[in-house]
Amino acid sequence: MLGRDYGGQECSIARTLEVVGERWTLLVLRESLLGTLRFDDFQKRLGIARNVLQARLERLVEEEVLVRRLYQERPPRYEYVLTEAGRDLTPVLIALMRWGDVHRAPARPPALVRHDGCGGDVTAALTCELCGASLTAAELDVNDGPGADDRGSRAVRAVA
Amino acid sequence: MLGRDYGGQECSIARTLEVVGERWTLLVLRESLLGTLRFDDFQKRLGIARNVLQARLERLVEEEVLVRRLYQERPPRYEYVLTEAGRDLTPVLIALMRWGDVHRAPARPPALVRHDGCGGDVTAALTCELCGASLTAAELDVNDGPGADDRGSRAVRAVA
Repeated sequence: MLGRDYGGQECSIARTLEVVGERWTLLVLRESLLGTLRFDDFQKRLGIARNVLQARLERLVEEEVLVRRLYQERPPRYEYVLTEAGRDLTPVLIALMRWGDVHRAPARPPALVRHDGCGGDVTAALTCELCGASLTAAELDVNDGPGADDRGSRAVRAVA
Repeated sequence: MLGRDYGGQECSIARTLEVVGERWTLLVLRESLLGTLRFDDFQKRLGIARNVLQARLERLVEEEVLVRRLYQERPPRYEYVLTEAGRDLTPVLIALMRWGDVHRAPARPPALVRHDGCGGDVTAALTCELCGASLTAAELDVNDGPGADDRGSRAVRAVA
C-alpha cells in the first residue's frame, strides 16, 4: 500500500495524498483533464501496465474523483469521467507542472497551458482570498485549525 | 523505485513527480516549510522510519530542493534547509491542502494558512499571468510546447 496510510497525520495534504499519492495516479488525472475517457486510451497514452491502470482507476472511482459511465451495452464498456472533485485537482497538476517547467525544463516546456480568453500563461499562484494579493511563501502564516489534533498547538510561521 | 521512472513521459508533471512523488516526500517538505530543520525533528513530527526519512532527505538534497548545513562540528551534525527551488514547491503543497480541506475535512481544516498581511485564507488558484483573472479548469487551453516529444501534436482542450 502506497500513499494510503498516513493515518497518524491530521493534515489535509496527507488526506489528499491518500487519494492521489500513489504512483501514476496524478498522470492518470492529467490524462482525464486532457479529455481521455477510455481504458485503452489511458493505457496507450501512459504506457503503464493494465493491472496498475485498473487499480488506479478503481481507486479514483471509489474516491469519487472519477465516475464510471456506460458507453456500450454489449459487451458492457465504461468510460471514466472527472467529477467536480476531480476537476478541483487541476491546481495540483498545474502547480506540479509549473515547478517542472521552471526547474526541470527551463525554456522548453513540454506543454503550454493558456487562458482561453486572453492566451496568457496559467499558473497556480499563491493568492490571498481576502485581498487578492499574489503571495510568496514568506507571506504565509500557518496555525492550527478546528480540525487540528490534540498534540497541542504547532502555531508556526512558514519559513522562506 | 517509486515515482522515479516516468522516463517515457515528456511532461513537467512527471518530471516534478520524479523529485517529490515518492511516499512521504511531500510531507517532509511540509515540515520544511513549517520550519523543521533537523533529522530528529522531522522524524518525531512525521513518525516515519529513520531509513525512509534518510533516503527522502538525501534525495531532496541531490535534487537541490534542500541543502545540508553544518550546525555542529563535533560530532558533525547537519540540518536541512529549503533552497529557492524548494520554496517554489509551496503552491503544490497549498493546492494539495486546499483540496483536502474542501473534499476531506469540510468545515474542520486541520491547519489554517493565512496571508500575514491581511489574514485572508491562502489558496493556490489557477491564475492567468497576463490578465490576472482567476480561472476554472474549463478556461484552460493545453497545447504542445517547445519541449514536447515527437509523438506529434496532442493539442487538446481541457475538459471541465
